[in-house]
Amino acid sequence: MERIRSVHVAAHVGERVRVVGWLQSLRRLGGVSFLVIRDGWGLIQAVAGAERLAPLSGVPLESVIAVEGLVRAEPQAQGGVELGEIAIEVITQAEEPPPLPLGKKQLNAQLPALLEHAVVANRHPTRRAVFRLGAAVMRAFRGALDERGFVEIQSPKLVETATEGGSNVFAVKYFTRTAYLAQSPQLYKQVMVGVFERVYEVGPVFRAEPHDTRRHLNQYTSLDVELGFIESHFDVMALLVEVLRAILGELERRCAPELTLLGARLPALAATVPHIHFAEAQERLVAALGEHERGQPDLSPEGERWLGQWALEEHGSEFLFVTGYPLHKRPFYTHPDPARAESSNSFDLLFRGTELVTGGQRLHRHADYVAAMRARGVAEAAVASYLQAFKHGMPPHGGFAIGLERFLMQLLDLPNVRLASLFPRDLHRLAP
Amino acid sequence: MERIRSVHVAAHVGERVRVVGWLQSLRRLGGVSFLVIRDGWGLIQAVAGAERLAPLSGVPLESVIAVEGLVRAEPQAQGGVELGEIAIEVITQAEEPPPLPLGKKQLNAQLPALLEHAVVANRHPTRRAVFRLGAAVMRAFRGALDERGFVEIQSPKLVETATEGGSNVFAVKYFTRTAYLAQSPQLYKQVMVGVFERVYEVGPVFRAEPHDTRRHLNQYTSLDVELGFIESHFDVMALLVEVLRAILGELERRCAPELTLLGARLPALAATVPHIHFAEAQERLVAALGEHERGQPDLSPEGERWLGQWALEEHGSEFLFVTGYPLHKRPFYTHPDPARAESSNSFDLLFRGTELVTGGQRLHRHADYVAAMRARGVAEAAVASYLQAFKHGMPPHGGFAIGLERFLMQLLDLPNVRLASLFPRDLHRLAP
Repeated sequence: MERIRSVHVAAHVGERVRVVGWLQSLRRLGGVSFLVIRDGWGLIQAVAGAERLAPLSGVPLESVIAVEGLVRAEPQAQGGVELGEIAIEVITQAEEPPPLPLGKKQLNAQLPALLEHAVVANRHPTRRAVFRLGAAVMRAFRGALDERGFVEIQSPKLVETATEGGSNVFAVKYFTRTAYLAQSPQLYKQVMVGVFERVYEVGPVFRAEPHDTRRHLNQYTSLDVELGFIESHFDVMALLVEVLRAILGELERRCAPELTLLGARLPALAATVPHIHFAEAQERLVAALGEHERGQPDLSPEGERWLGQWALEEHGSEFLFVTGYPLHKRPFYTHPDPARAESSNSFDLLFRGTELVTGGQRLHRHADYVAAMRARGVAEAAVASYLQAFKHGMPPHGGFAIGLERFLMQLLDLPNVRLASLFPRDLHRLAP
Repeated sequence: MERIRSVHVAAHVGERVRVVGWLQSLRRLGGVSFLVIRDGWGLIQAVAGAERLAPLSGVPLESVIAVEGLVRAEPQAQGGVELGEIAIEVITQAEEPPPLPLGKKQLNAQLPALLEHAVVANRHPTRRAVFRLGAAVMRAFRGALDERGFVEIQSPKLVETATEGGSNVFAVKYFTRTAYLAQSPQLYKQVMVGVFERVYEVGPVFRAEPHDTRRHLNQYTSLDVELGFIESHFDVMALLVEVLRAILGELERRCAPELTLLGARLPALAATVPHIHFAEAQERLVAALGEHERGQPDLSPEGERWLGQWALEEHGSEFLFVTGYPLHKRPFYTHPDPARAESSNSFDLLFRGTELVTGGQRLHRHADYVAAMRARGVAEAAVASYLQAFKHGMPPHGGFAIGLERFLMQLLDLPNVRLASLFPRDLHRLAP
């Protein structure tokens, strides 16, 4: 008999079907036993007396089994159906019981255990839900950009020089030379504006930050966008809002079960997301939190939280753009504010009080790059081929990058960004 | 006036429109001049007398300009329209003329010049067409798999050990340790079969092969698939054919202009793709090419070409599966042929006489892994967390990987795989 997926069983009440998957739990209650079989899509319960359970004798949980049975309506069971009169076949017997309680509704385990046993822990329905949501975010991101004439690119991850400056870069022995892992596709996506006007990339980026915090990963998935022929960073912000709207719409339409399982609430995204200039934000923070906020070149985590709360109370928005960050704190390619030279045409998008997206307008004239790099002591030779693109005509352009794992962390209120990564890389962890 | 895209101009005959883009070429012919403006989507011709060209005085090709003009039908022009009565505005003046003849129909330049100046060379319509096709392949690949219940994953690129064995692996200084760049997502996609049954990934893979050939890149884009609950590698081959059909269908429907520009012909994909066992293929090669083919553990490039020709003549197919490669030449995770222990349940797909896809069934029992690794001297400790997945129940499974750049090379008959990569990485090249 052809197997059917767990999520399709409810359409077959009164018929015999075959499901295959993992033996997630087995409870004996009086004379009957309740099995839960998990396949790639969901769970299905089966009920059997002892005589039908013989094939499972000595078989650990997480063994791979096939179950044929009669589909019966059962309002108490997940999905409203269960299998009765079953016949069980063991496909692959597990060697030993799972190291984590995968059969429980909640996967109660400490973070180190979850990470150590990720190859098994990720099978739990709550963990799967996180990664299904991640896949939906990527799909919606690409769909929204494909619709708007963007072209997907794949840029080099091995580069000659640190793209974002700073020292948080991994060195690679590249034959007889040293290469570095790309901290972002920034320079390549800009160059590609000269080719396609509008490009995006979904891929790994690498940050050698030696921070052991709940917000940092050493490899994460960056959703990168860059587009030409903009007036200012406000055009970039408008596109970002459209993309976020597409992502949230996809999650609402297609991921209700996952959101429910995780107890997550999608944020409302107003027609216009409020924005506040960095200078004004700082004035408000000084008034609210004290003089120590004055003159800071960036927002503190405490400041971001306060602004998030302020945006919610003042504008009813869980999103807030902060624009005009001080130019000297942004990378060399950042475009200054023409009306206010110490400010930049850049923005961060705060979501529930934490930075989610960074973006802005970039320089587009070769001479401006040369001047900006000299002022900052960036060697032109290190990015010579990047600068070549600007010698040959580049339009005003800008873009943004969303960190996938951080988005999931904030959306799902995860206590640690590592829980949004299938197999996170951090200071101490290179496996699994 | 709002700009419109070059490809939309033909819908506005008799109206004034504004286009923006790059000054791709400028020819004077008698008293009039012909400009070609290239935007992110296509080309549009404009015609003007000397008096309207004043803004372009001293302005190099590839400068970014805006042109407003009246749309006129002109059968001689690309797209059947041109702009007359134009007003030109220079948005960004290029610093110097382009290093390559971007204004010519064919980009006549040697490979080293194309690679050295890739940030500009990739603007040429023939180069753009290659990468638009690449984007379409990725889109169709994902779409076909999404429809079939696959989940997209992002796996770690920094790993503890060489995934595919061998020494062609890049070492990374990872804080106080040494990490390696992943040669493939193989071990992770297998582990993820335990989570979602069906997964795919599109991402960079890294091979430190010190080969300077037309077929090798040190970073390429791998389209990876893995699925559970298969009977044998023939189920994997059936899925691969469906995915290829989806890709070729997308290219046919959406990429006709690019294929025409590049003079490329899509292959026909028969309802069933012919397959031949490695042992039979070798017999045929011995008969056709000589005794030196006997007993080889793999097919030679010459052998692959002969088989490609044979499949075309015998079966009318540009695709040919070769199955049952000798087990000892495939990686340790390869499943043996139950009926023929020295053969494996593996396959290669030849396309036009060159290997395009590798795939097969994998081992799924923990004990089989332990035995296979001992027989080959692979240390269990090096892949301990990978093996953990198999301790806890894995179904029979298999998968395949398509190299995106190699697919484009063969589809488009490119002389070198580097031409299928935006910014290729090879023995000598880390920039652009």
